[in-house]
Amino acid sequence: MSTAIDAYVRQNEQRLLEEIKDLLRIPSISTAPEHKADVRRAAEFVADKMRAAGLENVEVIPTAGHPLVYADWLHQPGKPTVLCYGHYDVQPADPLELWRNPPFEPVLENGNLVARGAADDKGQMYTHIKAVEALHAVHGKLPLNVKFLIEGEEEVGGESIADYVAENPARLKADVALVSDTELFAEGLPTLCIGLRGLVYTEVIARGPAKDLHSGIYGGAAPNAVFGLIELLSKCKDANGRIQIPGIYDDVRPPAKEELDSWARLPFDEAEFLRDEVGASRLTGEPGYTVLERVWARPTLEVHGIAGGFTGAGAKTVIPATATAKLSLRLVPDQNPDRILDALRKFLEANAPAGISIELRVLSAGPPLTVNPHHPAIEVAARVFQETLGKKTVFIRSGGSIPVVGDFATHLGIPSILMGFGLPDDGLHSPNEKFRLENYYTGIRTVARFFEEYGR
Amino acid sequence: MSTAIDAYVRQNEQRLLEEIKDLLRIPSISTAPEHKADVRRAAEFVADKMRAAGLENVEVIPTAGHPLVYADWLHQPGKPTVLCYGHYDVQPADPLELWRNPPFEPVLENGNLVARGAADDKGQMYTHIKAVEALHAVHGKLPLNVKFLIEGEEEVGGESIADYVAENPARLKADVALVSDTELFAEGLPTLCIGLRGLVYTEVIARGPAKDLHSGIYGGAAPNAVFGLIELLSKCKDANGRIQIPGIYDDVRPPAKEELDSWARLPFDEAEFLRDEVGASRLTGEPGYTVLERVWARPTLEVHGIAGGFTGAGAKTVIPATATAKLSLRLVPDQNPDRILDALRKFLEANAPAGISIELRVLSAGPPLTVNPHHPAIEVAARVFQETLGKKTVFIRSGGSIPVVGDFATHLGIPSILMGFGLPDDGLHSPNEKFRLENYYTGIRTVARFFEEYGR
Repeated sequence: MSTAIDAYVRQNEQRLLEEIKDLLRIPSISTAPEHKADVRRAAEFVADKMRAAGLENVEVIPTAGHPLVYADWLHQPGKPTVLCYGHYDVQPADPLELWRNPPFEPVLENGNLVARGAADDKGQMYTHIKAVEALHAVHGKLPLNVKFLIEGEEEVGGESIADYVAENPARLKADVALVSDTELFAEGLPTLCIGLRGLVYTEVIARGPAKDLHSGIYGGAAPNAVFGLIELLSKCKDANGRIQIPGIYDDVRPPAKEELDSWARLPFDEAEFLRDEVGASRLTGEPGYTVLERVWARPTLEVHGIAGGFTGAGAKTVIPATATAKLSLRLVPDQNPDRILDALRKFLEANAPAGISIELRVLSAGPPLTVNPHHPAIEVAARVFQETLGKKTVFIRSGGSIPVVGDFATHLGIPSILMGFGLPDDGLHSPNEKFRLENYYTGIRTVARFFEEYGR
Repeated sequence: MSTAIDAYVRQNEQRLLEEIKDLLRIPSISTAPEHKADVRRAAEFVADKMRAAGLENVEVIPTAGHPLVYADWLHQPGKPTVLCYGHYDVQPADPLELWRNPPFEPVLENGNLVARGAADDKGQMYTHIKAVEALHAVHGKLPLNVKFLIEGEEEVGGESIADYVAENPARLKADVALVSDTELFAEGLPTLCIGLRGLVYTEVIARGPAKDLHSGIYGGAAPNAVFGLIELLSKCKDANGRIQIPGIYDDVRPPAKEELDSWARLPFDEAEFLRDEVGASRLTGEPGYTVLERVWARPTLEVHGIAGGFTGAGAKTVIPATATAKLSLRLVPDQNPDRILDALRKFLEANAPAGISIELRVLSAGPPLTVNPHHPAIEVAARVFQETLGKKTVFIRSGGSIPVVGDFATHLGIPSILMGFGLPDDGLHSPNEKFRLENYYTGIRTVARFFEEYGR
């Protein structure tokens, strides 16, 4: 049967490309209030394409934030039900000056589709819809039951989908979730992700003098909010990246020896990773752990941005009154987001510099996750993926976070197949984000084939 | 004779107010390239008013940066020559949202003229021109010779005037300089400043990965430019404000016991200073030094602003590629700016975090200064000031920096009378900067009286 699907995808390549380019043209930046209407437009686009693919009960569901899109096709009683998840929102595109082309004008460069959201996650999410279309076109029906729940707040914390999943377990009941928001470990290497880090994302605000002060007249006696924030944040981790917040490592469960051994066999070249992906003078991180352990199985603390005082051109001699940083921790099994936030809050309060008051705002909090590689659906996915790409499927973790996978586990009691088609150098969240066009087609074919085989 | 001057000022109060308001309406922000034409306009305004006041050889002198304005009146051979200095440029007005009124729409509030530059330095600089006008109006001539050199780059490092003074010692030859860019120690207390801190102002740029990276995928292995900068800057001083750069304190000369004793007698209330001026929860700084010692006689290191990574609304999970901070040191006798910059550069290089490259850009560098209180012109100024305000003149230092005073000493061999009419709570460089209107008139009267007495 897969040959018919393959032929369908090949015959429709041009149209499939134009469709995803249309979606990529919508600047659905969920963190930016000024793009609210664009985010809505992307939701409507997804809903229209679901209807066109033969999905039913398509619904754009309003939320307190950005809309969810639901759809289903449930005409195979007795067969399994797959809950397809993805997100149509994207990260902000700044720094804009580093893009070779405008981020929302997709272009093909060397077989890559370059645009914000190409890989994360519009291009990948769309493979599910197109797999349904292909199956309908070729067979006139689907080989199993599907439900779709697509969100527009993944890049901004995903609060609405978390609430929706918690409140609608009956509507969303399924045997397994299918999530394509990860990547192949290497070009052509079929990869299933069975572990994700959790994330707590915060804003730390420091306040010193009532207003910006002249640094000549008050320097030496007045607290400086920018320096106070610097002083405080510098204490959060040491030069090796080891987090200094008491209790942070208490619940960290190291990976089993079997898993560590499988990671050691992965085709990972540290020098290439440094040169092609990171592009710094050297890698950093905790001594005594491999790079893969550091990014997959160790908690980390990062400052994503900082702003305070005078940052224009030239010189201004002020002692700034306030400063703000975006700070997050990535969590690994079995760390608990609430306990970690408590520890962070206590640490910041206990270490607030003299004359500086500190406020901590929590923007999101999601737990770490692992998936059992021996679940039947995962085994089918691994087999199908291996057949599509002609290589043995590897099981990896990701250092990233997909909070909804935790919600599916908690509220629906189902595991998630993390079957992604991106590549390590896709530049997610970076300028010139790309998605290999071939992997877009591979994604459609593999998802369709997974539906066929899991429906047998 | 002073009664005639007093009467002239009183009769012309309204016009004198309107004139300074006109000057304050020009947003002559020297650090902002988009205000270049406004800075030029302010120079032309000053030149016009000099001509109207009876000054001669008025010239707007083009420079590589903003123009200088020169003028003189030299018809009293045998009498001393005073070189009047001031600046017509102002600091940026941000944060704009904290101003009660637009910064370049001057308003009178409770006897204060509120606008950016009201006290620093347009209002004060203008007293010299109006003193000349008053003397001409009352006596038909000046009692001594004057030269004016007014700049438009004081807030941006003052490079052009430094060059001009170095290259034109004959044209600028004088017996003493008169600078009104400081403040009364307290309302109604005649004050001469006889010490200024020096300033080296820099930009520190940290670079890590080649581009912003996804903090999930790379967090734990990739260097973070924002955190690297935080780590590095935190090492520059300790929690007490003690600078940690080796050699920084080597050349610091403590004030003489006599000077320290006179500071102890000044009407300084630490609680009031904290509450009314600083507005933080407490003061900070090196233990073992009084507040006045800390701001007048101790070197300090401040970060004026910092920017890097994602600082918009919401959450973006990046590991930033670059970050920048504005960092300065205030210097005291006998610290040398070049030696201090060397020490800073070495320290930053030696302490650059793993994977982070550091660039140091020097924006300006000026030495600390002291003036001999027993110089004849200073003694006349002290006596005149005492007569105008009816109290004994006090001698203080300022923690601020007026680099041109060093240039006058070096290239012209003359001391500067730092006779300012601002008040400690004028909010220089802050939102709602003000200048007490009464002190504007006092300034005109005192400067005119100084010319009269020094010309005897």
